[in-house]
Amino acid sequence: MGKLVIVGTVAFDAIETPFGKTDKILGGAATFIGLSASHFNVDAAAVSVVGGDFPQEYLDLLSERHIDISGIEIIKEGKTFFWSGRYHNDMNSRDTITTELNTLADFNPVVPENYRDAEVVMLGNLHPLVQLSVLEQMEVKPKLVILDTMNFWMDCALDELHHVITKVDVITINDEEARQLTGEYSLLVAARKIHEMGPKYVVIKKGEHGALLFNDDNVFYAPALPLEEVFDPTGAGDTFAGGFAGYIAKTGDTSFENMKNAVIYGSTLASFCVEKFGTERMQSLTEGEVNKRLMQFKSLTQFEIELA
Amino acid sequence: MGKLVIVGTVAFDAIETPFGKTDKILGGAATFIGLSASHFNVDAAAVSVVGGDFPQEYLDLLSERHIDISGIEIIKEGKTFFWSGRYHNDMNSRDTITTELNTLADFNPVVPENYRDAEVVMLGNLHPLVQLSVLEQMEVKPKLVILDTMNFWMDCALDELHHVITKVDVITINDEEARQLTGEYSLLVAARKIHEMGPKYVVIKKGEHGALLFNDDNVFYAPALPLEEVFDPTGAGDTFAGGFAGYIAKTGDTSFENMKNAVIYGSTLASFCVEKFGTERMQSLTEGEVNKRLMQFKSLTQFEIELA
Repeated sequence: MGKLVIVGTVAFDAIETPFGKTDKILGGAATFIGLSASHFNVDAAAVSVVGGDFPQEYLDLLSERHIDISGIEIIKEGKTFFWSGRYHNDMNSRDTITTELNTLADFNPVVPENYRDAEVVMLGNLHPLVQLSVLEQMEVKPKLVILDTMNFWMDCALDELHHVITKVDVITINDEEARQLTGEYSLLVAARKIHEMGPKYVVIKKGEHGALLFNDDNVFYAPALPLEEVFDPTGAGDTFAGGFAGYIAKTGDTSFENMKNAVIYGSTLASFCVEKFGTERMQSLTEGEVNKRLMQFKSLTQFEIELA
Repeated sequence: MGKLVIVGTVAFDAIETPFGKTDKILGGAATFIGLSASHFNVDAAAVSVVGGDFPQEYLDLLSERHIDISGIEIIKEGKTFFWSGRYHNDMNSRDTITTELNTLADFNPVVPENYRDAEVVMLGNLHPLVQLSVLEQMEVKPKLVILDTMNFWMDCALDELHHVITKVDVITINDEEARQLTGEYSLLVAARKIHEMGPKYVVIKKGEHGALLFNDDNVFYAPALPLEEVFDPTGAGDTFAGGFAGYIAKTGDTSFENMKNAVIYGSTLASFCVEKFGTERMQSLTEGEVNKRLMQFKSLTQFEIELA
């Protein structure tokens, strides 16, 4: 079992959906990634920053999941990153109401000494230079580096993003962002162009339409599990990435065949995330529930066909 | 091997896409369904109507595919149904420029005598009363009746549509139409409501995002094959339905397991249809090409997972 370093936000979210709204609750990319990866009992460390306003119980919640929090800096006089947003009726689009960077504005990530030889590094959505800084602190070349990013960095830090992209093995990105990054509408062509930027593996997340994994001429497609209702999509992409990274860290196998399984685990875990507000569902999730849903994924997608 | 009755338009289309435009070319639901189903060498008959302006070579083209055309009425003094449309840059939406019903306005379908005992009936997108008339002419209850429809009939003939829906086994419908028909956003809930309207099997087509097959608590998901470029989406839904119907007619097996295969064949055939304008690609399609792409579908979707 390998070590996993996760860098990303640990934050407050306030969420409004057609089903209701929350006060400030636990959120952030590193939080969702960590909770998801913790399903695989990997030795994970979160690298992030919070303010003095961040409740100890939230940190305890991560610790209890065996996520090392020594890399989460607490700036007592500062405030924690805060995001609030409102989802539209179709739950596929949202408006950001508030983004308060707070302590994140000057975030200087420090990877704990004993995680600088981690086999897997998951660079959650953050400024590309922060992601780069984490990579540069690794003392042993990781077996797999996974990068998640978003359109915001394409708009305001494209050169830095291109630079860090050259240094990663896997990129996870949504369909619109893949199109923005490459100027290509076809996801097949977009994935090829991203390959040429550096990453050997490209995962394109399509929300309710599933996810695609590309590696040269290999393509794999995992649907999203059709759900009765999507309650809150916040964190689904990070939960997907956390499941992917956690499964790779656990198995230590970076073959395409095993990455297909990592994608299936990522999709499975993400399908739970959206069932309740914020991290609520991920906190109560059991191994039995995950295994049951994996079986649903199998029956959803597997077939036996004979040629005509 | 069973008989297959196909009712639908045989038409002229004029298509404009970002890649180019056509004059009046061969189109129509029954045409695409027939060409697709003909891949399975089933004994199929098309029931439709055309005008005196319809070229004999187009009829020959269907005959050469062993599609019985005795049920295609030719009204010498009339004109053939004509549709023209323009696709937007993303190829996912289009504007209708022209719809000339012509001979279709008074279409009275007549199922050829020797096809009134067909095992499979494919009711292509037409007025629900025309679909109903075909069903009423069947002298032996078909093993499987498949209905395709669209939002247009929900807007202007909803009662008649509800009536014919009670009489079919399978409905194929796109995601937006499923939502319109049921008032439900979740496709899982929408499919359940459509089940309650009559059909035991519900196929929801999601275009580039694939297709879902529902039967009570069983769900199966077939992605669309990721393509370099979609040249012309016209007829893809009908090609899907034709592949589905043709495979069922060929195998005579209406189990859920076999319907999964029918969905895969439908998706496979539709993935060719969009590669060229109109019916062009389907006309040149070989069995070897289909089998090769089926193998691509397998590697796209099949995985081996062990529980954590």
